[in-house]
Amino acid sequence: MQLNSKIIFHIMGLLLLCNGGFMLLATLVSGIYEDGATLSIALAAITTMFVGTFAMFYTRGHKKEVKRREGYIIVTFGWLVMSFSGMLPYLFSGAIPTVTNAFFETVSGYTTTGASILDDIEVLPEGLLFWRSLTHWIGGMGIIVLAIAILPLLGIGGMQLFAAEAPGPSADKLHPRITDTAKRLWLIYVGYTLAETVLLKLAGMSFFDAINHSLATLSTGGFSTKNLSVAYWNDQPLIQYIIILFMFLAGSNFVLSYFAFKGKVQRVLKDEEFRYYTGFVVIFTIVAALVVYLKAEVPVTEYHPMVFGSAESSFRHTLFQVISVITTTGFVSADFTSWTPFLTVFFFGLMFLGGSAGSTSGGIKVMRHVLIIKNGLLEFKRTLHPNAIIPVRYNNKTVKEQIVYNIIAFFVLYMLLFIIGALVLGAMGIDFVTAIGGSASSLGNVGPAFGGLYPLSNFNGLPDAAKWWCGFLMLAGRLELFTVLILLTPYFWKRT
Amino acid sequence: MQLNSKIIFHIMGLLLLCNGGFMLLATLVSGIYEDGATLSIALAAITTMFVGTFAMFYTRGHKKEVKRREGYIIVTFGWLVMSFSGMLPYLFSGAIPTVTNAFFETVSGYTTTGASILDDIEVLPEGLLFWRSLTHWIGGMGIIVLAIAILPLLGIGGMQLFAAEAPGPSADKLHPRITDTAKRLWLIYVGYTLAETVLLKLAGMSFFDAINHSLATLSTGGFSTKNLSVAYWNDQPLIQYIIILFMFLAGSNFVLSYFAFKGKVQRVLKDEEFRYYTGFVVIFTIVAALVVYLKAEVPVTEYHPMVFGSAESSFRHTLFQVISVITTTGFVSADFTSWTPFLTVFFFGLMFLGGSAGSTSGGIKVMRHVLIIKNGLLEFKRTLHPNAIIPVRYNNKTVKEQIVYNIIAFFVLYMLLFIIGALVLGAMGIDFVTAIGGSASSLGNVGPAFGGLYPLSNFNGLPDAAKWWCGFLMLAGRLELFTVLILLTPYFWKRT
Repeated sequence: MQLNSKIIFHIMGLLLLCNGGFMLLATLVSGIYEDGATLSIALAAITTMFVGTFAMFYTRGHKKEVKRREGYIIVTFGWLVMSFSGMLPYLFSGAIPTVTNAFFETVSGYTTTGASILDDIEVLPEGLLFWRSLTHWIGGMGIIVLAIAILPLLGIGGMQLFAAEAPGPSADKLHPRITDTAKRLWLIYVGYTLAETVLLKLAGMSFFDAINHSLATLSTGGFSTKNLSVAYWNDQPLIQYIIILFMFLAGSNFVLSYFAFKGKVQRVLKDEEFRYYTGFVVIFTIVAALVVYLKAEVPVTEYHPMVFGSAESSFRHTLFQVISVITTTGFVSADFTSWTPFLTVFFFGLMFLGGSAGSTSGGIKVMRHVLIIKNGLLEFKRTLHPNAIIPVRYNNKTVKEQIVYNIIAFFVLYMLLFIIGALVLGAMGIDFVTAIGGSASSLGNVGPAFGGLYPLSNFNGLPDAAKWWCGFLMLAGRLELFTVLILLTPYFWKRT
Repeated sequence: MQLNSKIIFHIMGLLLLCNGGFMLLATLVSGIYEDGATLSIALAAITTMFVGTFAMFYTRGHKKEVKRREGYIIVTFGWLVMSFSGMLPYLFSGAIPTVTNAFFETVSGYTTTGASILDDIEVLPEGLLFWRSLTHWIGGMGIIVLAIAILPLLGIGGMQLFAAEAPGPSADKLHPRITDTAKRLWLIYVGYTLAETVLLKLAGMSFFDAINHSLATLSTGGFSTKNLSVAYWNDQPLIQYIIILFMFLAGSNFVLSYFAFKGKVQRVLKDEEFRYYTGFVVIFTIVAALVVYLKAEVPVTEYHPMVFGSAESSFRHTLFQVISVITTTGFVSADFTSWTPFLTVFFFGLMFLGGSAGSTSGGIKVMRHVLIIKNGLLEFKRTLHPNAIIPVRYNNKTVKEQIVYNIIAFFVLYMLLFIIGALVLGAMGIDFVTAIGGSASSLGNVGPAFGGLYPLSNFNGLPDAAKWWCGFLMLAGRLELFTVLILLTPYFWKRT
């Protein structure tokens, strides 16, 4: 079967054109702030748009049909094309002079990871800071289309289950048109971003910081404009509570927000994933807050300007960190690795949770955990009654065995890739804790990690090879593993 | 459905009687060496046998039939009854004065883990040292019955697949009689133990050390009579190569040894699990040996009397450690956590491998990994061709989907229990690396771990609660998870 390579190049061209358009936006911001990077960003935008237009022009008159195999290539190469073009503003302006670092920062942006190689974020020109946040936000938009319109059709990791719940007409054949559903959810995404910007401005943030943090919140990205991340506003609790609220929304299923706006609140409250997601946040916050309140000894230094021992501070900082890690945002208001040994292991465990399906969060995701645990418990029942057929139920419906199977396969692959990820980092001379933390954080698109990659540190100290490897893990994690890994199998490239 | 509790107590009685018999053997050894512990061990033996006889007498005339549910109870409680009676020699002699420590040492023995709480092993009376090794060996015998005769009938974690390969008549109903197959394999187990003892004696070990190390090798246990474990014989490579050989045999399927002795060598060489098992050992040894030869900087101190930089020494020590960890024996000839950061992560990964099904080794086991990886790769093929039926093949036969499902469920449960295990240890104030290493090592029945539990250290520094928790993990890991965990589900105790 011949690949329809023309349409692949055509869509890559379209993506480049859009990406260049977004760069023009960053050029505008750069110009307004007169940050000195305007020409560089403009040049990057023009280059990107030129290549995109050329590719589209050259592949005009392509067949419109997109099959499964082309679908996989478009998704993975789409993210790669975005990342390789998205690093141009950093390179052209010289703000991040090496390709390795520029690519890392960009892929970390588009995958909404939020891990950085910048030792000093605050010296970056405004235009580039904005571009950095924008890569998150563009990545988040990509994820929404992916979750709603593409992955379910490719049959990946149980996403069919989620898509069945989505509103609007369901397509039965993969096509490059973005579905109506995705458009509705984008509207919510844009709306939330604006709302957060306004609230943060009202709470006392500068407009520039407000818009940047909003872009990074709704995409569950985590890039900040400050070296201290959100810990910069540790004396302004209101700002942190607003970010907490929007991180929570960004990690919940956008389809539920749609129902809520339609007035179907009952439907939101009855949603099984939403209940577990909320339950996890509540329970884990209570546990962590109690431990921090009673036990944590944190030196109040310049870099840890947090007041512990106070109930409100313990509650706020643990809630912030729990939501930030569960939703895989990766904003930091305090260094959770400095609290207690228990909480270090605790947050390591949370890295594997992930937010809701249909959100912009990464990780394994609550829905999958719920189904795996339910199925695991039922497996005991099945062992006791080997002849009975005992299906898993989710949202009051029986789940097809094939879907449970897909989800478990996803989990196994995730854990294997986490272990391989850590082994490879270890092979590059990185110590045990940093390797394990870096692998889990990259794969889950979280951002902050452990050891040398603790929350207020960054990934710049890693060797170049490790930066590329983490970039690969981010991409694989972001695109639900199968989409990327299937391109590495011989089956995929075999002609049938 | 009423439980046939009489037969449960009857079998517990029988186990106690046997265990008391074994203690008499330790009494004899103690008497020969006049180590001063003879009376204490004798008292423990008599107490155990008395309780056992009483239980058997009281439950005579029981119905012979054993159903699934009784099967689970017998297996888990059997191991517990052995452990609680097996700790009496330590307690009565005062060699290990606290119940927590004595239970830990005993459960570590019967589960063939080999983790110890003894700071100075060498001061123990000979009778107790022998008892310690014997608990390993008894545990190993138990595992052989379990793998051949019990687990396949309970339908646990794909053991049906392995049992189908076993020689001899296959029972279709669970009964307490030990099958003919198990008896044949026990003969091989005993034979190998004697052979190793003779070879170690000829190579220069004392007879006492030779028999103890043989008991601990064939059961893939890992208790040594020396504080330095097998590093004590670092200047006698022959001894270490003999132990390497028998660790390898102990971690291979005993059924294959049976075929080899029957002259069916072709059958052994064609066995898929054996080929992967051997392949893993070879590949991982080559990788580790190269790293140690080229990179490791180990100070030559009293406690690290190893000569590195020499090709033979690098090869021997890495081969020893790789086989010791893969087979979950846990003997130590060098501290793998002191080599390089990469090798630390590397050995952490190996902890999850495990030896062959039908061996005395713990862990996930090679067969399961092979099937999971095969199935994972086929999942990509299935995603591309959603309507094709693509089964997994193993040993040239199609594997039933239900069995693949069982194996994957086992893997998921194993990883979850590992994470929960580490979280609980973290909650007890144990640092990150120690918690993660301790959980992986206990669950896999390995013995040595990382951080505070590095290979030449021990578990004595852990808080009491952590020792009990590790004991639980050892038991769950040893009994293939489901057997233990099913007793904790409500389904199990529900009357139907």
